[in-house]
Amino acid sequence: MLGSPYQRSGDVPFTLGILGGGQLAKMLAQSAYQLGLRVAIIEHGADSPAGIMTKLEFSGGWNSDVDLELFISASDTITLENEFIDPKIVERIAEKRLVFPTAQTLEKIQDKYIQKQTFRSCGIPTTEFISLDSPEDAIEFGTKHGFPFIIKTRTLGYDGYGNATVRNSNDIHSVWRKFTESEEPRALMAEKFVHFTKELAVMVARNRRGEVAVYPCVETIQENHICRAVIAPAQVEKHLQLRAKEIALECVKAIDGVGMFGIELFLTNDGDILFNEIAPRPHNSGHYTIEACVTSQFENAVRAVCNLPLGSPEMIAPAAVMINILGERSGSAIPDSVVETLKIPTASLHLYGKSTSRKGRKMGHITALGSTSDEAMQSALNSAKSLIW
Amino acid sequence: MLGSPYQRSGDVPFTLGILGGGQLAKMLAQSAYQLGLRVAIIEHGADSPAGIMTKLEFSGGWNSDVDLELFISASDTITLENEFIDPKIVERIAEKRLVFPTAQTLEKIQDKYIQKQTFRSCGIPTTEFISLDSPEDAIEFGTKHGFPFIIKTRTLGYDGYGNATVRNSNDIHSVWRKFTESEEPRALMAEKFVHFTKELAVMVARNRRGEVAVYPCVETIQENHICRAVIAPAQVEKHLQLRAKEIALECVKAIDGVGMFGIELFLTNDGDILFNEIAPRPHNSGHYTIEACVTSQFENAVRAVCNLPLGSPEMIAPAAVMINILGERSGSAIPDSVVETLKIPTASLHLYGKSTSRKGRKMGHITALGSTSDEAMQSALNSAKSLIW
Repeated sequence: MLGSPYQRSGDVPFTLGILGGGQLAKMLAQSAYQLGLRVAIIEHGADSPAGIMTKLEFSGGWNSDVDLELFISASDTITLENEFIDPKIVERIAEKRLVFPTAQTLEKIQDKYIQKQTFRSCGIPTTEFISLDSPEDAIEFGTKHGFPFIIKTRTLGYDGYGNATVRNSNDIHSVWRKFTESEEPRALMAEKFVHFTKELAVMVARNRRGEVAVYPCVETIQENHICRAVIAPAQVEKHLQLRAKEIALECVKAIDGVGMFGIELFLTNDGDILFNEIAPRPHNSGHYTIEACVTSQFENAVRAVCNLPLGSPEMIAPAAVMINILGERSGSAIPDSVVETLKIPTASLHLYGKSTSRKGRKMGHITALGSTSDEAMQSALNSAKSLIW
Repeated sequence: MLGSPYQRSGDVPFTLGILGGGQLAKMLAQSAYQLGLRVAIIEHGADSPAGIMTKLEFSGGWNSDVDLELFISASDTITLENEFIDPKIVERIAEKRLVFPTAQTLEKIQDKYIQKQTFRSCGIPTTEFISLDSPEDAIEFGTKHGFPFIIKTRTLGYDGYGNATVRNSNDIHSVWRKFTESEEPRALMAEKFVHFTKELAVMVARNRRGEVAVYPCVETIQENHICRAVIAPAQVEKHLQLRAKEIALECVKAIDGVGMFGIELFLTNDGDILFNEIAPRPHNSGHYTIEACVTSQFENAVRAVCNLPLGSPEMIAPAAVMINILGERSGSAIPDSVVETLKIPTASLHLYGKSTSRKGRKMGHITALGSTSDEAMQSALNSAKSLIW
């Protein structure tokens, strides 16, 4: 079958092409290599975390026609680690190679308003939301659904960028101006503020035959819009975990998604599970799967994209905790001392090999397993605290 | 400290150089990348399993002065996946870079007679052995210790090559001629035949500070001198497992070994544990550690060589079984169908990405975890049997 490794004659090795060279691409490459595949990386700039891991590095980025063509030629099937790629480029790639997730899936996801509309029309529970054509629309929304509420750019927002909390009508005009009068004015939407108890996430893999692997429901701990830690499984009642997994799976089916998807959800104060966001790629909330599950999100991402049977997403330990290693200063990407961290024998350290550090930048992560999530958390925290920048 | 990553100023990434590009180098590279390091590979020929995984590939091999110099320049600390390298080359590298295992360790190991002498003098139990200067020495040995016994080349034997079983005095002369009258005559030794119940193995990591990580005692199942399967932990009484681990550790200390070592042992019919062989590198009997232990042999090999604290070698599941995937035919390195294998959701598949297959060639391996070794074996066998070449 076109696009599948292992089902071809001759000695031709199968190359998985990855759009992007960051840590997600790095970990995807790790899994591809384990399965005996080769890897091609295209990124803007040389020596990215994944770029150093292959002979097939195209450092002009996908905006360089030359490098894009060379990358396509070098690859058999292509996937991405970055959902902000212009779907037109993905369409161009799709003229020559299988690429997952598809341009169609990306178009449904990249605009958060269309994203939520698509899901709402499939019966997936979300918060109230509308698209905004004018500040008056926003005022009306706030009056109807209450203040505060959120105004979001419909495209290109991540980790909190492109979001603004609107506390009262007066805020609306300044927020409106900020987003619409900038160099690149963006379409806006409003969302009713969700009062949540916990933030949850579920990873879902789906291949072209529609086979799925739904990972455990986990809890994510965010600070300033950046993920700090992940607890697996989430410490919520079983029926809520199941509900979250159900919703996550429905989301992926709603967009006919092929590949790996990270679905973020809210557990509201009222005890409901609401859809929040979806990313069509491996996700920070799934890094724990490398040590904690039979098949990591990265391996299943490779399998899904290459139309191979998926591996079990079951956990192999009762609990796991992942803690992000975030830069605390600018400058060298190498922490002053990782040695203390490595002395904690039971936590697994991952460093992404980025060129420079920056406050808040994701530089690596630590995962610990445990009989209970408290035990795993203790282990992971001890390890993370000992890292000296 | 020189030769340690993470303890340097500035943005200079640390590069681990590996002599050899086969599957052991591939898996070493995987671990180095997880720790945020870079990797340089030197091998005879391009596109080896590890060679494809780096921009720093030197395909002229270490017998090419040019490539060796470039490889040394590109690397910060160097290790090997192949113990048959001429110690003089290692000494040459050591003039410029830290390299582990050292040339001194290699010299003690590469000659099996010197190897056993070193260990015997440290009180490590081995079978009876002598060096052979003449066929008469061999006849005397057989008379004293019984037939059959083994004549081995002192250097360069592996996977059964360089061994001959001597059934009676008449055999001796033909064996002698075969080994001493070939193009490259080899020095010989004799070993008393060991009647064993099981073959065992223990991996030991040791860093420059003398810190050690001793892995579980496992059982290896050999067929025609090639490892077919590994059962972890070995199904022998605890005191025997401990004795095997004790002996393995003594071996590594006896040669002041730094790096990762695979020690093979016999459980004799008399219930004794005898030393058999040692390899100064990650070993087939340790591949199960990737899924089954907190820290894989490959990660601890990288840590040991880079003088970092070692990670825990403890198992994270009660049992694990690894089964080698051996080529069944010549030709394409890609099995006709790996799909059936991947459908078994609980076994982890590793394919090495070699260029061609050959009957008996190590092309990959499968590891399964289980509550019991029977369960793990079942899982691994189902997976392996489904692989169609």
